[in-house]
Amino acid sequence: MTTHPSTDLEWFPNPRPERDYEVRFEAPEFTCVCPKTGQPDFATIRIRYVPNERCVELKSLKLYLWSYRDLGAFHEAVTNKILDDLVAVTSPRRMTVVGDFYVRGGIKTVVEASYP
Amino acid sequence: MTTHPSTDLEWFPNPRPERDYEVRFEAPEFTCVCPKTGQPDFATIRIRYVPNERCVELKSLKLYLWSYRDLGAFHEAVTNKILDDLVAVTSPRRMTVVGDFYVRGGIKTVVEASYP
Amino acid sequence: MTTHPSTDLEWFPNPRPERDYEVRFEAPEFTCVCPKTGQPDFATIRIRYVPNERCVELKSLKLYLWSYRDLGAFHEAVTNKILDDLVAVTSPRRMTVVGDFYVRGGIKTVVEASYP
Amino acid sequence: MTTHPSTDLEWFPNPRPERDYEVRFEAPEFTCVCPKTGQPDFATIRIRYVPNERCVELKSLKLYLWSYRDLGAFHEAVTNKILDDLVAVTSPRRMTVVGDFYVRGGIKTVVEASYP
Amino acid sequence: MTTHPSTDLEWFPNPRPERDYEVRFEAPEFTCVCPKTGQPDFATIRIRYVPNERCVELKSLKLYLWSYRDLGAFHEAVTNKILDDLVAVTSPRRMTVVGDFYVRGGIKTVVEASYP
Amino acid sequence: MTTHPSTDLEWFPNPRPERDYEVRFEAPEFTCVCPKTGQPDFATIRIRYVPNERCVELKSLKLYLWSYRDLGAFHEAVTNKILDDLVAVTSPRRMTVVGDFYVRGGIKTVVEASYP
Amino acid sequence: MTTHPSTDLEWFPNPRPERDYEVRFEAPEFTCVCPKTGQPDFATIRIRYVPNERCVELKSLKLYLWSYRDLGAFHEAVTNKILDDLVAVTSPRRMTVVGDFYVRGGIKTVVEASYP
Amino acid sequence: MTTHPSTDLEWFPNPRPERDYEVRFEAPEFTCVCPKTGQPDFATIRIRYVPNERCVELKSLKLYLWSYRDLGAFHEAVTNKILDDLVAVTSPRRMTVVGDFYVRGGIKTVVEASYP
Amino acid sequence: MTTHPSTDLEWFPNPRPERDYEVRFEAPEFTCVCPKTGQPDFATIRIRYVPNERCVELKSLKLYLWSYRDLGAFHEAVTNKILDDLVAVTSPRRMTVVGDFYVRGGIKTVVEASYP
Amino acid sequence: MTTHPSTDLEWFPNPRPERDYEVRFEAPEFTCVCPKTGQPDFATIRIRYVPNERCVELKSLKLYLWSYRDLGAFHEAVTNKILDDLVAVTSPRRMTVVGDFYVRGGIKTVVEASYP
Repeated sequence: MTTHPSTDLEWFPNPRPERDYEVRFEAPEFTCVCPKTGQPDFATIRIRYVPNERCVELKSLKLYLWSYRDLGAFHEAVTNKILDDLVAVTSPRRMTVVGDFYVRGGIKTVVEASYP
Repeated sequence: MTTHPSTDLEWFPNPRPERDYEVRFEAPEFTCVCPKTGQPDFATIRIRYVPNERCVELKSLKLYLWSYRDLGAFHEAVTNKILDDLVAVTSPRRMTVVGDFYVRGGIKTVVEASYP
Repeated sequence: MTTHPSTDLEWFPNPRPERDYEVRFEAPEFTCVCPKTGQPDFATIRIRYVPNERCVELKSLKLYLWSYRDLGAFHEAVTNKILDDLVAVTSPRRMTVVGDFYVRGGIKTVVEASYP
Repeated sequence: MTTHPSTDLEWFPNPRPERDYEVRFEAPEFTCVCPKTGQPDFATIRIRYVPNERCVELKSLKLYLWSYRDLGAFHEAVTNKILDDLVAVTSPRRMTVVGDFYVRGGIKTVVEASYP
Repeated sequence: MTTHPSTDLEWFPNPRPERDYEVRFEAPEFTCVCPKTGQPDFATIRIRYVPNERCVELKSLKLYLWSYRDLGAFHEAVTNKILDDLVAVTSPRRMTVVGDFYVRGGIKTVVEASYP
Repeated sequence: MTTHPSTDLEWFPNPRPERDYEVRFEAPEFTCVCPKTGQPDFATIRIRYVPNERCVELKSLKLYLWSYRDLGAFHEAVTNKILDDLVAVTSPRRMTVVGDFYVRGGIKTVVEASYP
Repeated sequence: MTTHPSTDLEWFPNPRPERDYEVRFEAPEFTCVCPKTGQPDFATIRIRYVPNERCVELKSLKLYLWSYRDLGAFHEAVTNKILDDLVAVTSPRRMTVVGDFYVRGGIKTVVEASYP
Repeated sequence: MTTHPSTDLEWFPNPRPERDYEVRFEAPEFTCVCPKTGQPDFATIRIRYVPNERCVELKSLKLYLWSYRDLGAFHEAVTNKILDDLVAVTSPRRMTVVGDFYVRGGIKTVVEASYP
Repeated sequence: MTTHPSTDLEWFPNPRPERDYEVRFEAPEFTCVCPKTGQPDFATIRIRYVPNERCVELKSLKLYLWSYRDLGAFHEAVTNKILDDLVAVTSPRRMTVVGDFYVRGGIKTVVEASYP
Repeated sequence: MTTHPSTDLEWFPNPRPERDYEVRFEAPEFTCVCPKTGQPDFATIRIRYVPNERCVELKSLKLYLWSYRDLGAFHEAVTNKILDDLVAVTSPRRMTVVGDFYVRGGIKTVVEASYP
């Protein structure tokens, strides 16, 4: 992956850390750039997690996903990177990220990664 | 969350407390205010529970949900707060609250919290 | 609209100019930038036309649509500009362009323009 | 209708005034207040129009629709008022506004008004 | 039909009488009594009209429809009566009432009447 | 067709004879007997009509349709007979009867007849 | 087409010849043999007609359709032959026959013919 | 288009030339080669026509469509060529060919051509 | 199977080899040749796997699947060969390949093979 | 069952006998004859199996299924016979045959048999 600009994922304190509950995000407007061809790629990113002490702040998540707009990244790398960054910032109890990419070369790709 | 006005959730005695049965509510007309931007948020609130000695009184639930109209609250906080308030007033055997929020910044958010 | 880079829409001779027939394209991977907020916008672009002497070359159309990626443009302007550019290069007998944009500020926008 | 705060609907010059083309908006997050009961009302507002010299600016439309949040207004009045205000500011070639309101008292209401 | 209690359908002044626009109501919770068997009947009542000087007030419409609860009336009579009463009170430019009744004796009945 | 027992189709006075309005019945529980094989046939009977001076009484219609249960009748004859009997008793302004029969011998049959 | 065995399509007198009404058949279990390869073909045959003096007798229609089981016939010929035979025997006011054949060589075929 | 091998589209005499009837084919297994990139293209070809003196022989149509497997051809050219070849061999009363191609470069293409 | 040209499946280092995550491909544009009849076969190939040290490179996968275009191979052999080749090149933790073939001789075939 | 002609089911060597993988066939064009009434029966035959040393050859399977065309056989017998014949010829690790028959006398029949 080409160098990723500093990510400014923000969090706010989980309002109910003593409870296990689930948050689900669906972001159908994700785009990055193919590292081999320089062509734009498009995907829907789906995230679901159980917060521990920290919740993902929604607006910073939006900006974070936008920050991939000019980045070259393989589908597998970008999906794992989103999971790693979100885990690093918010230390959730568990989290799954799915990257559901548009057809390229007649082939549709879906990558699904989970923590822990 | 900005201060929540006193909630007047009411209950009536469970007509069949010796039986485990489930009640489900769906309230598609929920609105509150984003605590970061001051912009209105919209959601469908889904509640399902098994009552113990007390049932949620429907009209007071409607007024209770309306009371969020001018409140600033994160999606995660408001969903957990609804669950906490309903549990505090009615002590159900079990209860789940789902906050299904409209798209903001190209991202759709769903929060699901359960008791116990 | 911020200045649009030189567009290199290409054409090839219509293989059957003496016949009225219809070509339809659907491009769900369109993105540009909001001229007021600098935020990315996403749309599906639909084009249908009856060629005259020239056909729209598919690969150059793809590159042409990609060229909006970093451009600031209102929904109305971008849809009309695509129509104008395609008409200028290929002089079709008739053409319609539809820009079907994602929700922004809780509002979904569709723009539909036709030639002649 | 209780007094409506000054509306600041904005417009921008139609990028292609010499062409008849259609713009469609769908805003599912509209809320106002019932003038008889003070209870909140919810609706989806649908707008379609052919611009003349002016286009409706999307962000000001969002703010304009939000401005009804604390206003008391009958369904019929609010739908016609939105049409009148949009016509006054943008003088479109033609415009239709549909107010699609949620169930009240067991009755669902839809109001559809057109100009000219 | 057994005697109908005095109906108190109310109206309010049409906020835009100089414009032809349409209002549609759908009331899925209508019930009356079969005049032959005394059994309850259920229906969805659909009303659409173009108001003249007067609009149908929604809450009084709800109470008006409730007033049929203990009335014995044939499907054909009740649908025409609703149309006649609404026309008498509001003198619309045009109006249609559809009574869509539940299965009785294995037969589903729909009655549709229009004015003028 | 084997002899049809005296039909006791009843009518009641049209409550609004001065108005053209439509009544629609759907009876999915119709059964008769195949005149060639003695096997039971099943159908949905659909009726729509504009009453003149007389309306079809629903309960007698139900009993009338039941009276075919032990009758041998071709699909074409039974559909036309229902139309003829209803027309004879109620003299409607216009009427259509559709007999929608189940598969027999691997073939599905639908018969549709109208008056006048 | 290889020689077709004598067809014994039967008819019965139209019970209501003075009325224009429509009869529709759908027979999904039709099979014949490909005249070039000897392989079995399968189709759904759809027939709709307005009878004149004669109605198609259903059981003889079933046997008639079965009589194609060992016949070699092109799709186009078999569909037209069914129409011709039915017209010859029953002289309908009008009739349409559709032969909807299964995939052969990766190609699905539908033939539709009408009289007059 | 690269040179097309001699096409051996065959026909057989229309079994009912005196009648206007329609034949429809759907061939979802079409593949050719992109003339610019050498990459394989895939499409569904849909044909509908009213035969005159000649019918398209199904097996030769299959072989004819297979003959494009190694041919380089633009979407627009291949669709018109199929129409031209079929018209040249069978002189139909009228014919339409639709080429419905898979996504290439994020864009889906459909070409529809008719004779006469 | 006729001799398969040297396959140039490429891989790139798994960006997160210490994590078990799943990648799914769907390639609806697969074609090869029937070894008995020489006729083209069409299929959708579905692949899902958990990478170990190596990920399947998408463009080389596309070219690899294209390389079957002129190969004669039974459905069972081709599905197993794709699995074997992908396993040989990338040594995944686990992998499943499904070959979902079009109807041939009125029969649809699906082959599913897994490693280990 | 009336005597079944010698079946010539063929097989080819399993290309990957050391692996457990599944093959599924669906044959929607099966027909035989009812042994009681002599009328044709229609069914879809579904087969799934894990081959051992031998795979079912597809063309011989097609001919084998055609061989039932003039055979009288109960639904239960024909389904079990297909399973027995396929097991006898190919000795699979496991196999299931489902006969999914059309409605007869208003009753749909499905027979499912497995080995071992």
